Amino acid sequence: MRSRLMRLIDLIRKKRDGAELTGDEIGFIVAGYTAGDFPDYQISAWLMAVLLRGMSRVEIAALTGAMLNSGEVLDWNDLGARKVDKHSTGGVGDKTSLIIAPIAAAAGVYVPMISGRGLGHTGGTLDKLESIPGFNVNLSAKQMRSVLEQCGACLIGQTATIVPADKKMYALRDVTGTVESPALICASIMSKKLAEGIDALVLDVKTGSGAFMKKEADAVHLAELMVETGERMGKKVVALITDMDQPLGKYVGNALEVLECVEVLQGGGPSDLVDLSLDLAAWMIYLGERSSSVEEAKKLSASLIADGTAFKKFCDLTRLQGGDERALENPSLLPRAKNQEEILSSQNGYVSRMDCEKVGVASLVLGGGREKKEDTIDPAVGIVLHKKVGDKLSAGERLCTLHYNSAARLSEARSLIQSSYSFSAAAVATRGTLVHRIIESKSNQAGA
Amino acid sequence: MRSRLMRLIDLIRKKRDGAELTGDEIGFIVAGYTAGDFPDYQISAWLMAVLLRGMSRVEIAALTGAMLNSGEVLDWNDLGARKVDKHSTGGVGDKTSLIIAPIAAAAGVYVPMISGRGLGHTGGTLDKLESIPGFNVNLSAKQMRSVLEQCGACLIGQTATIVPADKKMYALRDVTGTVESPALICASIMSKKLAEGIDALVLDVKTGSGAFMKKEADAVHLAELMVETGERMGKKVVALITDMDQPLGKYVGNALEVLECVEVLQGGGPSDLVDLSLDLAAWMIYLGERSSSVEEAKKLSASLIADGTAFKKFCDLTRLQGGDERALENPSLLPRAKNQEEILSSQNGYVSRMDCEKVGVASLVLGGGREKKEDTIDPAVGIVLHKKVGDKLSAGERLCTLHYNSAARLSEARSLIQSSYSFSAAAVATRGTLVHRIIESKSNQAGA
Repeated sequence: MRSRLMRLIDLIRKKRDGAELTGDEIGFIVAGYTAGDFPDYQISAWLMAVLLRGMSRVEIAALTGAMLNSGEVLDWNDLGARKVDKHSTGGVGDKTSLIIAPIAAAAGVYVPMISGRGLGHTGGTLDKLESIPGFNVNLSAKQMRSVLEQCGACLIGQTATIVPADKKMYALRDVTGTVESPALICASIMSKKLAEGIDALVLDVKTGSGAFMKKEADAVHLAELMVETGERMGKKVVALITDMDQPLGKYVGNALEVLECVEVLQGGGPSDLVDLSLDLAAWMIYLGERSSSVEEAKKLSASLIADGTAFKKFCDLTRLQGGDERALENPSLLPRAKNQEEILSSQNGYVSRMDCEKVGVASLVLGGGREKKEDTIDPAVGIVLHKKVGDKLSAGERLCTLHYNSAARLSEARSLIQSSYSFSAAAVATRGTLVHRIIESKSNQAGA
Repeated sequence: MRSRLMRLIDLIRKKRDGAELTGDEIGFIVAGYTAGDFPDYQISAWLMAVLLRGMSRVEIAALTGAMLNSGEVLDWNDLGARKVDKHSTGGVGDKTSLIIAPIAAAAGVYVPMISGRGLGHTGGTLDKLESIPGFNVNLSAKQMRSVLEQCGACLIGQTATIVPADKKMYALRDVTGTVESPALICASIMSKKLAEGIDALVLDVKTGSGAFMKKEADAVHLAELMVETGERMGKKVVALITDMDQPLGKYVGNALEVLECVEVLQGGGPSDLVDLSLDLAAWMIYLGERSSSVEEAKKLSASLIADGTAFKKFCDLTRLQGGDERALENPSLLPRAKNQEEILSSQNGYVSRMDCEKVGVASLVLGGGREKKEDTIDPAVGIVLHKKVGDKLSAGERLCTLHYNSAARLSEARSLIQSSYSFSAAAVATRGTLVHRIIESKSNQAGA
């Protein structure tokens, strides 16, 4: 594939001048960079040219394929049933993976999920799982297969062998101002997800004040790129554009979010989180060919919660990955912060708006998140939101509760959370469905 | 100047998003990179963003100033008379520096010229000078001052202490596809020229098939940027947009070009080279305040050739820089190629066009130029053009003569030179004045 006559400098110039790179050229760049043949300074110039010039859909698919093939691609074809995963672009209180992986597995879909850690104002699935005592997200390929065979779902972290190109390239993008390229984001996400060896993928593309993409148009654009890229690579993909203009559910923080997931899997939990989880799980089941319609799959999901099967799956999964499943029944076994501080409302009225990113940063400031990759997190801390948009409140009533272990940055977190709320004297509608839009690949609509 | 709170990543993003950087921000980037504080991969991403987003005139002046101040700035204020230099953007057979530096010095202007080497199809002043036996272009600051004091001109190469930012940045641009930015080209040229401690600068911006800028509009754009940048930095600057659609003069190759310069300085030489040299020298003398008009300065230049003063200056300069001045009077002391091959015309008619870059590459192929910076050159080889655009010729008549030492790449050079000529049966006008356009800074026009 690599031509001796191909030179990286010419490909940098070609992209700089706005031309379309061929699949071979993109493969040459990705394979060469992964192999250590090309210096960072050439690749960062190329990445900036890609960011500013863009990539065609064909180029994005080629980039995704080249990155995917830079490392190991998992293979579960012998397992029979469909392999389906969900990916979220990240938000605050976004804990659905812990709810829907058990539901989908309970419905007979395999879920070989590889997740990430929290960074900045957004949380990460791995950090949430690790707040369960003993839970191990670093499994070998053999261990992953064993868990998947036994309970139908397995939730692990990135391994060194999967999409090494993305590891190198993302680290470089992070320090060169080249993260914010839809083409590069799409290829990064899709290559990692497709390396899981899945047949179908449900994308939860967040938009709003707590999302990576504040504007819905940007979220829709990325969603379209990802859906088309997946389709070009022979996968069924659907993207749900969902609301992240306020935190999802009521709990923000790692152990706190595990608690809320348990509530949902036991039939409780806040309605926004329940509804979105049922929608996402339904799409996984439908694309996993375990139902003939999304509606049917949604009913099935609800029944798998109601009859306890989904919660049982989560307990099995936890036990199989070394976690203390008793902590799921008995919250006192989960990490708990030493102190709590109530934030009270200073006025009567309604919550009119929340700056969702500020809530995420407040949780980070308490120790629940990471500013830099190297930071360690405190699984116990976080925020419980008693009031969200549309809720009525009286002066002196609790807005939220901060769970903290160190008073060092409490005042910073307090002022962040206070300023995240906007109020109105007049009544404000509660937010309706979180799903703004559904973007499907043509193959979903035609076949299945 | 450097703020602790300033972060390179934010400045990369700012330029990426099309915003204007402040002088402090540009200073922070240049000083930090020169000091080794910033890795190449961040700077190359920034350079690509600069190339694709552009820079305002204010930003370009700030970049030029920051680069200029990254190293030593020569100071000849005690010398009294004005210090003036000329810079050419490069071409084929472009040897005017060796002619005009002596003329301007003879007129009483100081010429502290720092030149470059040839690369690709273009030649370099230093390589030409070094074909004179003993000529030393690597002088210390003290030696340079001594030569300048004694004869009014000194022609040396880049030193490590002058504009170190450009050395680092240019090396990086060269391998990251970020050379072709007018803003970066302007700042690179102007910072190096202004570091010579000059009061005024004459720019020879080449356009045509042998120039870096094939399109005149691009040449004019760069010229305008350079003139305005010089003006913003308090210097008098003029740019002559000149023709490089065929080689300048008749000789291409290092020792051959020295010979042709001697011919001009002795009152001979081809008219295109003579005329352009007189124009450039006249502007140097005028901006150097040794005449009250360009016309007067042009007459003065011609008389300094006619009376032998300019040639005497070239001999003095050569001797003072360690060169064998006898070689200027006696060409047999200059390097001479062992072999010559005549290229004959296969038809009757007129030369209608020359692909000037091909002539430059033919000289390179014979050993007279460099493909890469590390290549060594053969000072003796080159091409003598007997026919240029507009010349009448008969089948069997000589088009040009190749001077070569090794037959290894002779056939490649021959086919290049043959394909560089286009012919026409009908008469073709010879090319008129080489000066297409003159771009002056406002301060030249107002004052002086």
